[in-house]
Amino acid sequence: MRGLMQDYPLTIDSIFRHVEQHYGDGTIVTNNPGGVTRATYAEWAQRTRKLGGVLDTLGISAEGRVGTFGWNSQRHLELYFAAPCTGRVLHTLNVRLFPEQLTYIANHAEDEVVFVDRSVLPLFWPLVDTMTTVKQVVVMDDGTDNEIPDDPRVLDYETLLAEAQPVDFGVTDEWRAASMCYTSGTTGNPKGVVYSHRSTFLHTMGVMAPNAFGLGISDVAMPVVPMFHANAWGIAQAAPAAGSSLVMPGALMQPEALAKLIIDEGVTFTAGVPTIWQGVLPHLAGKPHKLRDIGCGGSAVPKALSEAYREQVGIPILQAWGMTETHPVASSGVLPNRYQDADDETKATQRARAGIPFLGVEARIVDSDTLEPQPWDDTATGELQVRGPWCAQDYYNPDAGVELTTADGWMKTGDVAAMDAFGSIRIADRTKDLIKSGGEWISSVDLENAIMSHPAVKEAAVVGIPHPKWDERPLACVVLKEGETATEQDILEHLKPLVAKWWMPEAVEFIDEVPKTSVGKFSKKDLRSRFAEYELKS
Amino acid sequence: MRGLMQDYPLTIDSIFRHVEQHYGDGTIVTNNPGGVTRATYAEWAQRTRKLGGVLDTLGISAEGRVGTFGWNSQRHLELYFAAPCTGRVLHTLNVRLFPEQLTYIANHAEDEVVFVDRSVLPLFWPLVDTMTTVKQVVVMDDGTDNEIPDDPRVLDYETLLAEAQPVDFGVTDEWRAASMCYTSGTTGNPKGVVYSHRSTFLHTMGVMAPNAFGLGISDVAMPVVPMFHANAWGIAQAAPAAGSSLVMPGALMQPEALAKLIIDEGVTFTAGVPTIWQGVLPHLAGKPHKLRDIGCGGSAVPKALSEAYREQVGIPILQAWGMTETHPVASSGVLPNRYQDADDETKATQRARAGIPFLGVEARIVDSDTLEPQPWDDTATGELQVRGPWCAQDYYNPDAGVELTTADGWMKTGDVAAMDAFGSIRIADRTKDLIKSGGEWISSVDLENAIMSHPAVKEAAVVGIPHPKWDERPLACVVLKEGETATEQDILEHLKPLVAKWWMPEAVEFIDEVPKTSVGKFSKKDLRSRFAEYELKS
Ligand SMILES: Nc1ncnc2c1ncn2[C@@H]1O[C@H](COP(=O)(O)OP(=O)(O)OP(=O)(O)O)[C@@H](O)[C@H]1O
Ligand SMILES: Nc1ncnc2c1ncn2[C@@H]1O[C@H](COP(=O)(O)OP(=O)(O)OP(=O)(O)O)[C@@H](O)[C@H]1O
Ligand SMILES: [Mg+2]
Ligand SMILES: [Mg+2]
Repeated sequence: MRGLMQDYPLTIDSIFRHVEQHYGDGTIVTNNPGGVTRATYAEWAQRTRKLGGVLDTLGISAEGRVGTFGWNSQRHLELYFAAPCTGRVLHTLNVRLFPEQLTYIANHAEDEVVFVDRSVLPLFWPLVDTMTTVKQVVVMDDGTDNEIPDDPRVLDYETLLAEAQPVDFGVTDEWRAASMCYTSGTTGNPKGVVYSHRSTFLHTMGVMAPNAFGLGISDVAMPVVPMFHANAWGIAQAAPAAGSSLVMPGALMQPEALAKLIIDEGVTFTAGVPTIWQGVLPHLAGKPHKLRDIGCGGSAVPKALSEAYREQVGIPILQAWGMTETHPVASSGVLPNRYQDADDETKATQRARAGIPFLGVEARIVDSDTLEPQPWDDTATGELQVRGPWCAQDYYNPDAGVELTTADGWMKTGDVAAMDAFGSIRIADRTKDLIKSGGEWISSVDLENAIMSHPAVKEAAVVGIPHPKWDERPLACVVLKEGETATEQDILEHLKPLVAKWWMPEAVEFIDEVPKTSVGKFSKKDLRSRFAEYELKS
Repeated sequence: MRGLMQDYPLTIDSIFRHVEQHYGDGTIVTNNPGGVTRATYAEWAQRTRKLGGVLDTLGISAEGRVGTFGWNSQRHLELYFAAPCTGRVLHTLNVRLFPEQLTYIANHAEDEVVFVDRSVLPLFWPLVDTMTTVKQVVVMDDGTDNEIPDDPRVLDYETLLAEAQPVDFGVTDEWRAASMCYTSGTTGNPKGVVYSHRSTFLHTMGVMAPNAFGLGISDVAMPVVPMFHANAWGIAQAAPAAGSSLVMPGALMQPEALAKLIIDEGVTFTAGVPTIWQGVLPHLAGKPHKLRDIGCGGSAVPKALSEAYREQVGIPILQAWGMTETHPVASSGVLPNRYQDADDETKATQRARAGIPFLGVEARIVDSDTLEPQPWDDTATGELQVRGPWCAQDYYNPDAGVELTTADGWMKTGDVAAMDAFGSIRIADRTKDLIKSGGEWISSVDLENAIMSHPAVKEAAVVGIPHPKWDERPLACVVLKEGETATEQDILEHLKPLVAKWWMPEAVEFIDEVPKTSVGKFSKKDLRSRFAEYELKS
């Protein structure tokens, strides 16, 4: 027996209509280098419909990939909806990727047009001839004075929009591709994920829920997480869908500028990777603000960072876990009720978890070879695998041998985790970052957390280095805070009471900076190759 | 191009697993006549799996209808999940319906078994032989001492459960029927609506959102709206799915008992029809409580009631609009941002609207004959029509001539509404309750609201009575508060400044009580037939 409910498709169109019809007086603020711009959702909606007309005029094919190369901005949000709502596929290019990666990705996705912020045009333009399918480059003038090439392929966003007619949107197949996003490339070449209308609609509802970001009509949301990577954690869809106003940092990603926006615009919810919040902290500490939650994820969130926010800003950090392959948000560290009355230390430890999957996401930990389930005792670890309507099934034209899904239909995350009795996830490490010492695994993340609790330490990354007897041993790469000093001995003494003896790093190297990926994560593959020939003293 | 995301079905199973895996320490409290019972979601989940085993043992067919006849309780929640998660179809029978309607509905739905609360067994048992498909009656002992018939068809819930084996759930088709619910029968015979797994999953996410009921892990939710009608407004699914604890009033629906539960159990969110909150008010006024929202709908929510709550309980009422045909919740009167700084009167007027549809529900107002759209100017009215993934397409085996859906795919609500520029809905009336006077429409709801703002008036219902010249004219049926007096003249004087002259009721009748439907709504069809022969004085 079939239900007798409407077969109404879950599409981005329907989100768009919802915003257009009901939240016309919500606002989008963009902090452009040329000055702050403000618009209502009503204005945005009208421009988005015109942008649909532009895509027609440009001759973008019915399922053509519409590339973007820009910061979080109102125009980027216009693209976020105009491309999928006209049946095209939005493809966000990460402005911080290496040139070869950009070329690789644009060609792999077969972008037909790329919309580029004027502020990053100098990064993009030199590559245009290497992108074989790109026929047009539309410049979005964000008020910088970068030279605009005199080339017939180059068009101006506002000019096109001024000339365009608004179009009707009409995607009716919820399984249709809506957008593409490539992974960070932390562990190798970026891999393409293709979101559908359905998955986007459901992820939007998922992140809107109170146990996730809890976005509602009186929120002011600022996605610091880039729209050019991992779908801005769904905030670019969920904020308008909830009638929350949006604050976009544009190209002005300096910590001071971000803190100022949070304060001046009355931001209530924001989200970014740990390095961002690391930088913003001193500019927010002690200042008046309206924040109720600061989302953070993308890599391990140091407990010390969350506690510093609690002490200096008044709210701890809300950890979230996810991957490009999960749209990207799949779980959050919202404090379970049983810890509401616990002491600060216990609460902080709980908040340092990736937490409970959202309704719609199922998680398990298994032996990655045998798929044998591991016990939920918070001690046993296994590969974290997930399934759900916003988890990816396959990559887009993957390299040979890359398999995302297990034989029994679960998505492999490449993360190693433990789960407690309530299925709360604790990320131990990435599979590739675990250190195999004498047949046992050492979590680089746990070691880093312990090292970063030393008051003189700004950042620490731990990688495995080859060892004749133990196979691999941990090497701690430590960045000290400005003006602070500490010796190898100091660090090791600090660790002694915190970690098992056989986890103790073999050596401590003081470095100027931990190398970062395009989205600000520790790039351990870079550290590993830097120290590949490391000579242990002992 | 198709997205490359998982084809993961949206099922009630997946909600169940989510609760079982992650919220095992959440609690369900039931206020049974025999005493309060408490269980954790872990215990509930285990019992629900066993109940699945019971349904197998009883031989309920693969898509068999599992009837229930009971109050809001933990056991009812076990049925809410065990029936659909084993592929069967839950069918909630309204314990307050007339015997003939119950017989009609049980036969229409073809219930194979009915689970009956002992407290309402005397209402049910006399009908059992009229229900031709019912083979078993399972008694849920809620601590009353009603006699249990000595009949081979009668079984005991706890005995069956004790003997049963827990089963694995495994529904994989999201379009599969999950449950059935019949409309209130306010306007005629109840009509059957068949929810699917997909619609239930999406409605669950919809009501969980902050702009709806905003349910999260630290909430304690008490559905006063019955599980036997209109799906308890989705709270029975959304609360567990959000990890909110549940408080179930059981058979103890007296205002005093409800107020006590709210206070004693720290309820943060509750929902019920206006008559319930009317009754609870004096027992809650001035008392300490943890409520953050009181949902109310099912019929017009008098502005005076909401304001009385704001003044005496500290929070205004949150209006919601919906129908059995919309699962049932489709919109809410959450205050838009532009009114955050308005005066109390303006806010109260805004809160008296059915408000903004939830993400996932689209609304329009049209001429019901021509489907011509009406302007969103808050003045023009038209039939309210909706569409979305939790709106019904068809009734279950409807009577000849009953058409739920328009030619262009919208669901007809039978409600007449205006919409403002932001698409906020203001319900004017039911089509069948509008009063046609001299070719123009008078809203009975507006008149009632105006009359109920008179301090001596407890309740007022306005119906059209035949009139030789004007076709129909309004008759005001008024119930005075205990100990208060007022004359027809007083009421009319009170109305003069509030309504147009031609809206003035032709007469005022003082009655003891407004007749109510099975779910506590004003039964205007009863009033109309009572006053069908009304002799106007003029
Ligand atoms: N809260 C968190 N704690 C720890 N790690 C996290 C957290 N959130 C995300 N991550 C890490 O980020 C990964 C997802 O990142 P993303 O999709 O941006 O690409 P990537 O994995 O860094 O790059 P690639 O897959 O190309 O190597 C997760 O698999 C996990 O390793
Ligand atoms: N907030 C509200 N304001 C005014 N009316 C409301 C509100 N919420 C619900 N209603 C009324 O309740 C109706 C839905 O009620 P329900 O599905 O319980 O059955 P019914 O319409 O009373 O019965 P039947 O359809 O059998 O006549 C709506 O169509 C509307 O008329
Ligand atoms: Mg990855
Ligand atoms: Mg109805």
